This record gives sequence, C-alpha cells and structure tokens, in this order.
Amino acid sequence: MAKFEIPSEQWAQVVEKSGGPVVYKKIPVQKPGPDEVLINIKYSGVCHTDLHAMMGDWPLATKLHLVGGHEGAGVIVAKGDLVTDLELGDYAGVKWLNGSCLACSFCMQADEPLCPHALLSGYTVDGSFQQYAIAKAAHVARIPKECDLEAVAPVLCAGITVYKGLKESGARPGQYVAIVGAGGGLGSMAIQYASAMGLHVIAIDGGEEKGKSCRTLGASAYVDFLNTSDLVQEVKNATPDGLGPHAVLLLAVQEKPFQQATEYVRSRGAVVCIGLPAKAYLKAPVFDTVVRMITIKGSYVGNRQDTQEALDFFQRGMIKVPIKTVGLSELQDVYKMMEEGKIVGRYVVDTSR
Amino acid sequence: MAKFEIPSEQWAQVVEKSGGPVVYKKIPVQKPGPDEVLINIKYSGVCHTDLHAMMGDWPLATKLHLVGGHEGAGVIVAKGDLVTDLELGDYAGVKWLNGSCLACSFCMQADEPLCPHALLSGYTVDGSFQQYAIAKAAHVARIPKECDLEAVAPVLCAGITVYKGLKESGARPGQYVAIVGAGGGLGSMAIQYASAMGLHVIAIDGGEEKGKSCRTLGASAYVDFLNTSDLVQEVKNATPDGLGPHAVLLLAVQEKPFQQATEYVRSRGAVVCIGLPAKAYLKAPVFDTVVRMITIKGSYVGNRQDTQEALDFFQRGMIKVPIKTVGLSELQDVYKMMEEGKIVGRYVVDTSR
Amino acid sequence: MAKFEIPSEQWAQVVEKSGGPVVYKKIPVQKPGPDEVLINIKYSGVCHTDLHAMMGDWPLATKLHLVGGHEGAGVIVAKGDLVTDLELGDYAGVKWLNGSCLACSFCMQADEPLCPHALLSGYTVDGSFQQYAIAKAAHVARIPKECDLEAVAPVLCAGITVYKGLKESGARPGQYVAIVGAGGGLGSMAIQYASAMGLHVIAIDGGEEKGKSCRTLGASAYVDFLNTSDLVQEVKNATPDGLGPHAVLLLAVQEKPFQQATEYVRSRGAVVCIGLPAKAYLKAPVFDTVVRMITIKGSYVGNRQDTQEALDFFQRGMIKVPIKTVGLSELQDVYKMMEEGKIVGRYVVDTSR
Amino acid sequence: MAKFEIPSEQWAQVVEKSGGPVVYKKIPVQKPGPDEVLINIKYSGVCHTDLHAMMGDWPLATKLHLVGGHEGAGVIVAKGDLVTDLELGDYAGVKWLNGSCLACSFCMQADEPLCPHALLSGYTVDGSFQQYAIAKAAHVARIPKECDLEAVAPVLCAGITVYKGLKESGARPGQYVAIVGAGGGLGSMAIQYASAMGLHVIAIDGGEEKGKSCRTLGASAYVDFLNTSDLVQEVKNATPDGLGPHAVLLLAVQEKPFQQATEYVRSRGAVVCIGLPAKAYLKAPVFDTVVRMITIKGSYVGNRQDTQEALDFFQRGMIKVPIKTVGLSELQDVYKMMEEGKIVGRYVVDTSR
Repeated sequence: MAKFEIPSEQWAQVVEKSGGPVVYKKIPVQKPGPDEVLINIKYSGVCHTDLHAMMGDWPLATKLHLVGGHEGAGVIVAKGDLVTDLELGDYAGVKWLNGSCLACSFCMQADEPLCPHALLSGYTVDGSFQQYAIAKAAHVARIPKECDLEAVAPVLCAGITVYKGLKESGARPGQYVAIVGAGGGLGSMAIQYASAMGLHVIAIDGGEEKGKSCRTLGASAYVDFLNTSDLVQEVKNATPDGLGPHAVLLLAVQEKPFQQATEYVRSRGAVVCIGLPAKAYLKAPVFDTVVRMITIKGSYVGNRQDTQEALDFFQRGMIKVPIKTVGLSELQDVYKMMEEGKIVGRYVVDTSR
Repeated sequence: MAKFEIPSEQWAQVVEKSGGPVVYKKIPVQKPGPDEVLINIKYSGVCHTDLHAMMGDWPLATKLHLVGGHEGAGVIVAKGDLVTDLELGDYAGVKWLNGSCLACSFCMQADEPLCPHALLSGYTVDGSFQQYAIAKAAHVARIPKECDLEAVAPVLCAGITVYKGLKESGARPGQYVAIVGAGGGLGSMAIQYASAMGLHVIAIDGGEEKGKSCRTLGASAYVDFLNTSDLVQEVKNATPDGLGPHAVLLLAVQEKPFQQATEYVRSRGAVVCIGLPAKAYLKAPVFDTVVRMITIKGSYVGNRQDTQEALDFFQRGMIKVPIKTVGLSELQDVYKMMEEGKIVGRYVVDTSR
Repeated sequence: MAKFEIPSEQWAQVVEKSGGPVVYKKIPVQKPGPDEVLINIKYSGVCHTDLHAMMGDWPLATKLHLVGGHEGAGVIVAKGDLVTDLELGDYAGVKWLNGSCLACSFCMQADEPLCPHALLSGYTVDGSFQQYAIAKAAHVARIPKECDLEAVAPVLCAGITVYKGLKESGARPGQYVAIVGAGGGLGSMAIQYASAMGLHVIAIDGGEEKGKSCRTLGASAYVDFLNTSDLVQEVKNATPDGLGPHAVLLLAVQEKPFQQATEYVRSRGAVVCIGLPAKAYLKAPVFDTVVRMITIKGSYVGNRQDTQEALDFFQRGMIKVPIKTVGLSELQDVYKMMEEGKIVGRYVVDTSR
Repeated sequence: MAKFEIPSEQWAQVVEKSGGPVVYKKIPVQKPGPDEVLINIKYSGVCHTDLHAMMGDWPLATKLHLVGGHEGAGVIVAKGDLVTDLELGDYAGVKWLNGSCLACSFCMQADEPLCPHALLSGYTVDGSFQQYAIAKAAHVARIPKECDLEAVAPVLCAGITVYKGLKESGARPGQYVAIVGAGGGLGSMAIQYASAMGLHVIAIDGGEEKGKSCRTLGASAYVDFLNTSDLVQEVKNATPDGLGPHAVLLLAVQEKPFQQATEYVRSRGAVVCIGLPAKAYLKAPVFDTVVRMITIKGSYVGNRQDTQEALDFFQRGMIKVPIKTVGLSELQDVYKMMEEGKIVGRYVVDTSR
C-alpha cells in the first residue's frame, strides 16, 4: 500500500464572510474520521454554485469560514478505520454531496441527494478549493486510474448533473431530446452524454458559433433563438414526425424558455429543469399540461450510482470537456469573470499553484 | 344472439348553438359503420365538461348541432361487420374517447387519449344524451353484466379519470396520497379508488360535513382548508414521518392549492393535475422543484385498459357513487344547478323520460 | 436518553459444530463498534434457514461457533459514536441482512441484499438467539414503539420476504396473484400482504383446512392440489377472463409446482421464486416462455426500504401472524419439530427463559 | 394520389402440404377488406420460421395451402375504406404479426403479439412469398420512403426481434449485454442495435472469423466458446468490475448456453430468450436464481411501436444487414441450404423473378 507524507498546513481559498472575496491562505490539514478519507486534491472545477456559496444569495445558509469547491479530483492519502474498499493512492473525487446519513428513507432508496442530513462540499462543509479535503468514504467518487485528474474534474458536478437529468427525462435510445442552453459548459457535456446514450439531440442556443460547436459535438439539429421567427415550430420540425422532442433538458430555467418547452415537448413528454436561478418560477398552462399529459420535473445532482456511470462514459473517451486551467491562487479572478458572464466552457484550478 | 327493434327516431338533447340551451327533441337514429356499434343508452352521467361543451368556452371547438354526454351506459343493439368480440345484448359504455385511429404513435403505445384523430363523445361527435348512440367498437367500455347501468354511468368518465390520475401518480400500496377537493363528486370516487389500491388518503377540502364524508369513505386524515392556520404543515403532519404525502391529486387545479401542493408533497413526490379550469396556470418555484426533485404532471382521461380496470373495481363493490337520477328531458335544469355551483355528487339522466 | 445496565454475560444458543445440536449456554456480551448498535433481543422468530445454518447443508459456509437467528426484536441498549439517528431505548430488529458495505454497486442502488460483503445474521455473524446481539446501525429494522415485539418478530424475515416477492412480481392493485404454498407460515403472511396491496389472491395448497384458513385471511379463491383434476385449468378459471393470474408467488420452489406455474400464469406475467430448496432446478419449456413472454425471477430478502414498508403494514394491523412462543432454551425442540415437518405457523423464542 | 394497375393473377410460392416443398405457381390476387391494404411485395427476407411453417414441426398448426413469408417490403397498391392514414404508393412492410384484434386486454396494452386472435403472416394467413399480399392496415410497418426495400426486408422480422429483446432486457445505455450467437444473422443485427442504444456488447460465438466480424460491427469483447477454458469466467472478465454483463441475449436457446448465461449474468441481471428451438427447456438452479435475484424472460416479436423504432435506427444508417438476394422462384433452394446449416447472413427473395 502506498504511504503519503501529509503536511500539517496547506494552501486554501477561504470565504471569510458572505459576499466574499475568497482569501488565499494557509490553513491546517484535517484528519479523517473513522468513516472518512483525506484526499490530496490536485484539480478542482469551478461551478456557478461556488459563486452562489461565496455570495450567500441562495435560500440555504453556508458554513462560515468556508472553503468552497465541489469538483475536486485527487488522491486518497489517509483514511479512517472503517474504510475497507478504498486504498491509499486510489484516485477519488470530492463532489457536491460530501456525505449523507445512508439510513433515512431517501438514502435507503438511493436518493441520497435528498437526505435531510446531507453534507454539501464547499457549502455546509469545506470543499475542494484546498490541497487536502475530507469526505465521507462511502460518497467519494471512485475515479479509475486511467482518468486524467485535470480533465475529469468538471465531470464531478457538471457531468453528473446533466447525465442525471438525461436519465430522469425518461428518454430512450432513438428518441429526441431538446437541450436548452446547449452551447454553454453544461450544454456541451449534455450533448455528448445524450449522444452516448443513443439519443438524438436538438440543440437550442443563440448565435452561429454556438450552433457550429453543438453540431460538432453531435447535435442533429440546432435551433438559434436569436434567429428564428417561431422557435416552437422550428423545434417540432426538427423531429421527423413533427410532434416534438420526447424530452427537454432546461439547463438554465428562465420563464420564457420554460414556457416554450412546455409547448414544443411531445405529448406525454418530460420537461426536466436543472438550473437554479434564484427566485425563478415555472409557469405552465393547466389545460395543455393536462390534455397533453406533460411531465415537468426537477432534477438535482446525481446519486453515487449516477456518479460512477457518468465517470464511466468519460473514461471511455465519449465526453470531452473544454477546460481552461489556472492556479488555485487565481480563483477570485475566475469568480470575477463569472459575474461578468465572460466564461465559456469550464475553469479548473490547479491546487499546486 | 339477441335481436333488437331499432326505431328510426329517438329522443335527444341537442345543442343547436354555442352557449346553449339544450333542446329536447326527436332526431334520427344513426346506423353503425363496419367498425362501430349502436348502443341503446339507458343512463348517462352529467359532467362539467358537458357544460363546457354547450357553452363552447374551451380552447377546442365542438361539433354543432351537438348531442352532448360521455358517461353513457346501455346495451348494444346493432354492430358493423368487422366487430367480432362484442355481441348484441352486451352492456357497453360510451365514454369521452369515442374512437381513435389505433395506428398513430400514441395509439400504438396505449395512449389513445392523446391520438390527434381522437373522436370525443359529446364534443366532436354526438354523445350519450340520446337514446341511441354510435361509438367505435374498439373503444366502448365493456361493462360486465353484473353491473347496474344507472350506478355505473359516472364511472365511465369521473371514475376512470381519478383512477388514471392515481395510477399516474406512481404512488405504491402503503404510501400516502393527498386528494385536493376530496369532498366533491370526483373526490369521493378518488378516495375509494385510492383505498382499494392500498393507498392512504389525506383528504383536503372545506367544511366539517365534507370531512365526515371523506372519513367515512376511507380517508385516514382530513385537512380542512377553511379551518387551519397552516395547511402545508398540517398535511405533512398527517404522514407518520412528517415528510408529506408521496403524491397529490389535484381535482380542481387552482393556483393556490397547486402551489401549496408543491410545498407539502414529499421530495421525489408527484403532483398530478386533473381538473381543467379555463385559463389557469401552474406556477412553482424552480429552486424547490429542482432540489427536492418534484414531479408535476397532467393526467387526462384513462385509456381503454384503465377503463376496464376502473370498472373492475366498481364491479367488485369497492366504489360507491352517490348519484341523483332525473329524466333526460330535465338536462337543462341540471346545467343550471351546475352553473350555480349547487351540485353535490353526480347527476345521472334516464333516457326513457 | 434512556440508560441501560448491560451484563458481561448472557444466555445464548450456540452451534458448536455443523450438524448441531444447539447448545444453551452463557457467553460474553459484545461491545458495538462505531457504526453498530447492541440490541437486547426480547423475542426471535425461528426460520427454516436457521435449521439450514445449523445443519450446514447450504452451498455457503457459516461461521462456527455460531449463534443463529435473524428475526430478533428488541431494544437498543448501546451504540457506537457514529450512530446519530437511533437512540438508546428505541425498538429495533435484527434481520437476515446484519450489515453491508453501503458503497458497492449493489448497495448504491438499494440492492444491499446482493452486496458481496453482506453480513448475514445467524449465518456469517452471530444472530438473535442470544440476549444481546450486535448489528450495523444502518441496517437494523426501525420498529415503531406501537409494535408488540413478540408479534412482530416473524415479520423481520418471513414478512419482509413475502412482501418483497409481491413487489418484485410487478402485480398492480386490482390484479391477480397466485400464491403456491398459501396455507403455510409464509403463505398466510403473503395472503395478507397481497390483500393489503389491493391484489386478489388465488391461494394454492393442499387440504380443506388450509383452504378455509386461506379464505379467512382474504384469498378470493382456493385451489386444492390434493383435490383437483386439472390444477392449471382451475387456477386460470379463478380469474374473471380465464387468462390466469398476473403473477405467481412460489413459496416452496419444487419442480412440479414451478412448471405448473409457467403454464397457468398469464402471458406477460411473472413467476417469482422465493423458497430455497437445496439442489432444486427451475425447468420451463422455451417455446411457451418466449411466445407468451413470461418472466421468471428470483426474489431474495427485502432491502431496508422494503423492511420499513413491511413493518408499516404490520403496524397498521393489516398483518396477523399466528405464532407460538417457547423459551430460547427450548430451541432444539423447535428444530426437531421442523425436521419432522410438524410445524404450522411460526415459532418464536422468548430470550428471557 | 398514385394509381396502380393490379393484375388478377400473380406468382407465389405455395406450401401445398406440411413438409413441403414449396410450389412456384400462379395464384389469384386478393382484394383488401375495409381495414386492410394490398401490398405489392418487392422483396422478402427468408427466416428459419418460414422453414418451420413449411415443415409443420411447431406446436401450432399452419394454414394450408399456405403462402409463407413475413419479412415483405413493398408498396401499397390498394386499401379498404376505413384506411385513412396510409396512401397508395406508400412503402409498407408485411411482418410476422399480420393483424390482431386491437381490443383484447393484450392489444389494449400494446402487447398485440400476445393477442389470442393474432393473424400470423406466412403461418395462419398468407404472407410475403407472393407478389401481392394482404395485411391489416393498422399493423403494416410504415417504411419511410428513404429506405431501400431490398435492404430493409430482414429488419421486418430479424431486426425487430433482436431490438425488442434488447428493450426487454432492461439494460440501460452504458451497461453491458452479452449476445450469445453474435456471429449469426440475428447476432450481427443485435450487435448493431445494442451499440446504437449505447450498450457495450460482449459477443459470444465460435471461431476466429466470427470474432473478427463481431468486433468490426462494434462488440467491445469477443468470447470464443470453441477456444476457452472457462467461458463463464471469461465473460465476467469482459466487464470492468468482473461482475458480469447486466443482460444476456440468447439468440439460440440451447440448454448449455442458457445455463452458462444464468451463471455469468450479473446479480439482478436479465437473461432474455429469443430463439425457438422445438422441445428445448430452460433449466436453472433455484438457489442461485433466488439469492442473486436473476430474471429470466422470454421475448417474442416486437409490437408496432418497436417496429417503427427498429426501422428508425435502420433508416439512420446504423444497421447494416448482410443480405444475399435470389429470385422468389429459387426459394426451395434457400430452404435446402437452411436445412443443411449452410446459411450465413440473411437471404432475401426478389418477387420479380
């Protein structure tokens, strides 16, 4: 078994007060409890949720001081006595769900993201914007040794989330799924997961460049909302029988795209909401929803099984994530770009600098 | 095989112009096509939809002149050449779905209520407010000979609809379902179907009398919205673990009850909308819907299989419908009471008077 | 919080060598690990599996020395540091699945009975035929305080197992399920669970007395294999349309009943095997299985969610188990009766004597 | 609308007595009933079932005189009065299920292949080994105009059947399916359908040449039963975690391969039987089936929805069928090769010669 030198101090980005900024500083390295592991984080993706956590603008309070981050990929360097199926040296990932009780009615049904006692990485417990992070052993992502830790980082939240949404949609191989916001970071992963699952993708976003990118990633049609006289009709026309896609994945739930989705989705189809804009509402006409038997559902993050499946697709080379890597010390700059809406693709921080 | 004398003329209630009233008059008896049957209607339930059809206030045009009615129970007296599995003398029911193409992508998947070519009794084709009605043989309800035609009539729409909604909810035996509007005609049937399916019912409605009636029919709890300081909490408290019901059946989708339902439904639970108030909207907060993974779905009428199952529960004596029977000639009076909101339970018309 | 005096020694029935007998003697009381609880067992059901464990005649080796028993109901008297959702004084049950890794691909999907690292009470770890038993906290059955510990004991294996089998059958409320071996201990519970789930039961067993008992418990039909000229036809006739039951529960899988089940089950139906006769084989004709699209499946014990659901039905008074209680010291006598096939209903041992 | 000259006589291959041979002769062209179409068959695949029909060696009697064939692709040249959704000139396919009642409990649930009144092409009604075939309009395959009628013919039975089997297996995108008999005609289509559905294929067959072909078609592993010391272990090793495939498709159900399948399939997995060897039996050990919760199920032909989905995959170019085309007049030679086991791939007959 591998043996690791663990320092007593480490570099971390710490939110010291709601609203930020993050402070790059040295903090102590923790010791894992009996059911925990200590992971030497090598890379961590940066997600919009991390910005929300720093700003404290969601209807759920964060820990303070807080080390954010929930897309951390690294190496297990210590573990508690009860941990038998993981070894020092194994690759592992810190994801949004750091731990859960494993015994409540949700955990018992493999819905651990709904556990009322869930620990959330970079939100209610410290996350992956540090060099050494603690996580519950039963929950860390098992990352195969063949994976590149830098490239896999964004799969740990973004990848799992869109993959889960596609599963929740109920769409079967050979059916059509519309992806709203297909040209963004989540969207580019969603197109690839959907294709790998045998689904046909109708990508929806704005602008020609995004269209080109969506088609390259595998979309069979692209609908440009900046350049259409009738988006609803155009989406329906992108299915061979004109009845519309069997499912819709809404990566950014805003009111207008949501209402359009309920119009173009096929009867008996599902509109799956994934994004989490603060204070937004779903609004749909009752008559149409009933007589067309439409399903609207929220999809949160994946459970542990979804995690392993999402990683499996990645490992086989079916999912490419366009990443840009900077040092952990530069995290505040990334947040700044995020606030300014300047980010395309996914940023990853390297904890060694 | 039985043989029947079929008159050339019959009594019917005819909508001659949108807005009504219905006109009680003699009209010709039609002959069935090769895939149709002619049913001597004995009794027909009266549904709110019939009022909408007469008023023409739904976003779907009706036939004119129109014979309304879609809860007709009677006896087959003639049939076309292609009809082999029904015999003259069999009991049969005319339901909302008079016919469908049986070959489109919806019909092929047993979702014939979604067929774009569906014929709707008492709406796009003549219905059961006449003594002799035509229906597609493949679609008429097969009513067992043990059934009382007067009592079974309201099952043909109201019963099927609530039963379908309960199936669509995904609730399993032993789980909890809240029924909003449990004290009305649909509600009283929903409580009984739910109980027969092994579900626990939390009945929601207004007033003590309705509460008493709901409990008598089998509800394990009653929440009185006229007499509660916190309806959401009270509904959750009615489940043993306080996490709320696994499903909610909304028999009259209005904005406030709908929003409350999304609050008290258990995480991963389903809110099923059944009622069809014109111009109403569903509205739910995105954040909660997503992180609690709630499903909102519309449920329309049942398919043919649902119909037979709903009748099966009725036949075994598990569903009692409180009906009041009047003559077909008195239909306009029933509509009047309906408009005035004076109807409790279900009215049935007797076509013989 | 309650506080309990825990002795250092206790009475137990110990298998000291394969083939038995059990030895009634004093042994030390263990201390729970960080993720475990210590349960003061009050009552324990006796199952055929316990006899197999003593005899060592199954294709899976047992621990030796072994304390058998896996239907133990008692009170939590000590717990490890990681256990937060259980309190001293809570009622809890030791069931077949004493623990599992909670992290493998089966545990992650709520199929913990299939965990390759599962601990089996009274088989690979000591079970409930002692006054103080250890179990993994995440796995002990949460028994509501309203339950009688003596009466609930057999639910912890027999009840869960038949309930799981009924769930696995896929039969829906209103459908028919045939129960083979309905007159025995498992069968009597299966009839009651099926009825509570809204299913119609066709009970199959031998002799008039069993028939009477099955009907009393809720079976809608009884087929006596000792007294029928054509069992297959008689079972089919017990369904209104003559097409046979939607599912079959085989509580003792022997070759002839199994083959008959594949003949009378409805096309698209499921034959669920539960019993575990050593060396028995399933055998079914390919042609019929294929053209009638029959499903044959094995159902093992329930998972933790099934456990709670099965207890829930019991708690509401829907499941009555005919038990006979003797002292723990008399266990060997129970095994003797079991070997002689003399047991009707379920034996329970009282650990206080 | 197109208009077609329909001759009064046509060439056909007729089975005049059980055991054959087929007689190539002129017979009258039939007229379609009100719910039927007349299809000018251009090409028809030849299936082992056609040989069984001629030999009369299955436990179900055929029509006599009989025109065999149930993979017929052609053009609609006449239709009955009730047929509204098909036009003269449309491409259509005659498949095994020529018609069904569309009203029984199986048809109502989209299981029309289980309809007790099903008409079977080339078995209980005349099939596609003639120039003009009758079929029920609701059942003919809707073949898109983009399809090549010669290449699509074998999809109409072989393709639909393996696609249905894969759907019935319950395997999800990203999971593993073992295909037994992967190197044959059905197998080569199964590999392609599975791949298009996002499944990973472990191909099982005998010989190096077949292995090469399976890998080319998309199999991720090949297990050669002629060249392995432990087939069960080798199949399990072909899955990354060594737990075996999630499903097994048995294209030729023989006793040994079936028993092996129950050994290497993953716990909770499904073994799907498709082939129909006369008099063969399934045989599986009860203990293992129960404790591993294995499902064994028969899969017959697809329903109408499966048909359209299978054609959809073909139309997109994802399924290539290796065919060899001869004249309809040479059918007896094809049967001879079939009996001698000399056929690789799929034979198609051209009705014009």
